Amino acid sequence: MPGDVSKLVGMLHSLGRVTDEPGQLTRTFLSPGMKKANALVAGWMKGAGLTVRVDSVGNLIGRLPAENPKAPTLILGSHLDTVRNAGRYDGPLGVLLPIVALATLRRRRVRLPFHVEVVGFSEEEGVRFSSAYLGSQGYIGRLPAQVLELRDAAGVTAGQVLAKFNGGRFSPPKPSYARSELLGYVEVHIEQGPVLEARRLAVGVVAAIAGQSRFQLTWTGHAGHAGTTPMTLRRDALAGAAEFVLGAEAIARRTKGLVATVGVISVPSGAGNVIPAQVQHTLDVRHADDRVRRRALFALGRLATAIARRRGLTRRWQRTQENAAVACSPALTARLARSVKSVQGRSVALVSGAGHDAVVMSALTEVAMLFVRCRGGLSHHPEEYVSPADLGAALEVLTNFLEHLPAEAGSNRRS
Amino acid sequence: MPGDVSKLVGMLHSLGRVTDEPGQLTRTFLSPGMKKANALVAGWMKGAGLTVRVDSVGNLIGRLPAENPKAPTLILGSHLDTVRNAGRYDGPLGVLLPIVALATLRRRRVRLPFHVEVVGFSEEEGVRFSSAYLGSQGYIGRLPAQVLELRDAAGVTAGQVLAKFNGGRFSPPKPSYARSELLGYVEVHIEQGPVLEARRLAVGVVAAIAGQSRFQLTWTGHAGHAGTTPMTLRRDALAGAAEFVLGAEAIARRTKGLVATVGVISVPSGAGNVIPAQVQHTLDVRHADDRVRRRALFALGRLATAIARRRGLTRRWQRTQENAAVACSPALTARLARSVKSVQGRSVALVSGAGHDAVVMSALTEVAMLFVRCRGGLSHHPEEYVSPADLGAALEVLTNFLEHLPAEAGSNRRS
Repeated sequence: MPGDVSKLVGMLHSLGRVTDEPGQLTRTFLSPGMKKANALVAGWMKGAGLTVRVDSVGNLIGRLPAENPKAPTLILGSHLDTVRNAGRYDGPLGVLLPIVALATLRRRRVRLPFHVEVVGFSEEEGVRFSSAYLGSQGYIGRLPAQVLELRDAAGVTAGQVLAKFNGGRFSPPKPSYARSELLGYVEVHIEQGPVLEARRLAVGVVAAIAGQSRFQLTWTGHAGHAGTTPMTLRRDALAGAAEFVLGAEAIARRTKGLVATVGVISVPSGAGNVIPAQVQHTLDVRHADDRVRRRALFALGRLATAIARRRGLTRRWQRTQENAAVACSPALTARLARSVKSVQGRSVALVSGAGHDAVVMSALTEVAMLFVRCRGGLSHHPEEYVSPADLGAALEVLTNFLEHLPAEAGSNRRS
Repeated sequence: MPGDVSKLVGMLHSLGRVTDEPGQLTRTFLSPGMKKANALVAGWMKGAGLTVRVDSVGNLIGRLPAENPKAPTLILGSHLDTVRNAGRYDGPLGVLLPIVALATLRRRRVRLPFHVEVVGFSEEEGVRFSSAYLGSQGYIGRLPAQVLELRDAAGVTAGQVLAKFNGGRFSPPKPSYARSELLGYVEVHIEQGPVLEARRLAVGVVAAIAGQSRFQLTWTGHAGHAGTTPMTLRRDALAGAAEFVLGAEAIARRTKGLVATVGVISVPSGAGNVIPAQVQHTLDVRHADDRVRRRALFALGRLATAIARRRGLTRRWQRTQENAAVACSPALTARLARSVKSVQGRSVALVSGAGHDAVVMSALTEVAMLFVRCRGGLSHHPEEYVSPADLGAALEVLTNFLEHLPAEAGSNRRS
């Protein structure tokens, strides 16, 4: 196994050097860097015995068939694109680790009783067209038509880019599988959070991917001279927003598993000596249980109403994103947890606060996720880091999981 | 008097049409609009019997001599420049109202026992060179040398502009008066705040001009994924800043006369789904009593320290401005209050939260200010408005004040 870990580290480092922007790691949808990344990873897939193809949205798909052509298929994967100035683990880990695991099993002459498809999705981060999951949406045959109209920073539409990529004419991929032909989708990903580190565990199993609501809030009060308007006569939009920021924090703190974040705030055309007439800020609320999230949103709405009334402000909510929570497959998750226990003694159930390709894949099949500890919970940053020991643990878990997953696992399949 | 008010309204309207930017009222230091404004106002000054000159920094100075050449001089004035897209009262009121008052007295053949100098300062708002009070600083012979190096938006230095204005070579004005030759400086100005309106009074006397401290604060915490970082593990710079915003508001609310304002806030390179690592905001604190302001700053400092410690943040204070409070002349203010009472029955003492030319003039002589109610406390806005009735009250007060001010008022002069 140590040799496999070294190999995996080497692959992560090699792929981490494939970039659109010299000096930093950036690979976006169908960019030159992504083409090179696909070619590099395709070579590794072939080396592990997989048959490789690239679909019409640029997904890299490696297939390892079982002996029985009627066996079901297990899909393993994650994305090969990155954010700007990224780290080398977010995405690639979930593509390269399965390749190494399959190579390990092959060397040990283990024949799996199911087909395996390893997918490197071409787009998950939403960088180029400000729209995420283009790879997995394409893979399951559900690329939204309006995506084709989106323009990148150079003004080129996704439709034009896809047509060029396909030699002139783009046809969206058709789904390769019916639900009944699949065992499920398993994604290995860095945690992007601090929980595993806090619990001193290398890996953890995801029980659910949190649902999320995002808003743009606008508070409007009344401008006034900072020197001449007494405190009692103010209608300060920022003071109202500040109260909301702290109220949202308090609601999240007292609701188990809830996270609420105001990440951006501004006073449009504000000045240091003018009482803020208007404040705009974001709000991001997530929970694994949609009912809890909805209750929290209701409480946040009441909070905003109370603040606005008391301070003589108006506030406007604009919903910018809404995703329901995704529950992971109980059967696959239980099997993954068993493998985790056999490797590190105990297994904790995590909630993924971030979205992943698994969110989209859940529309096609059962999903499960394995999280790997990353240093300081840091992601989307060049200093993103997973230790070789933790990579080794994750590799052992995935190998163990593949070895023990039965092809007949009917409990994994919905009817 | 009604005729005088109509005349004053007409003058304010005429001057309000003299602008550098068609469609809105904007006049900046030594601009073409300011030259036209000086010419227009000079004509009105001459009509009221004043002798007019313009000094080397562009101040328009009209002088009405008393019979006795050894009589002291009373200075009346305000500024003729404006902010961008200004109203027509902020500044001009304090120049035109004295002209009309002197014309009224002249018509009534009242001869004042002191010289009067009406000054239209060429710069107070700090628009063109981001440095305020250029007119009054020049008038008292204290234009800071470094001002000459400042550049306007077109890249031209104030020194170049002043040289051109003076036909090639600029010599700063020398102060025209010794302190012992002056009775004081009286400035009429719109309140720019809501207190007179709230108290249903046309005019009020200023007891002091607040001292002010301005800061740029920077809070630094730790970035993190909004979905994956539990509330308990966050070091959210914005939550800390929000607590400070509300704490500053609370300190100001419980300290009589104190105003504290956070007018601008931002999360540099923030994103809706990232916990704010850094927040920057302004802080503006004012009070008529410098000791109260300093105590408040101490309390604000302790608040910031407590917040930072509790939340695992660091914070940095950067002082961007510091002005001591200016106490108005007790003798002149008492006389002004007497005139106010004779006109509207009662007189309230106001604190000017905004700075005025009187702040600079206080280095040369005793100062007093009369505030005039403006609708909604609004200033620096095209909808700035003073009713003709209130203009009439202010005119009556100033005329009454001039009529009753003795030339020998030794109590007005410091030794």
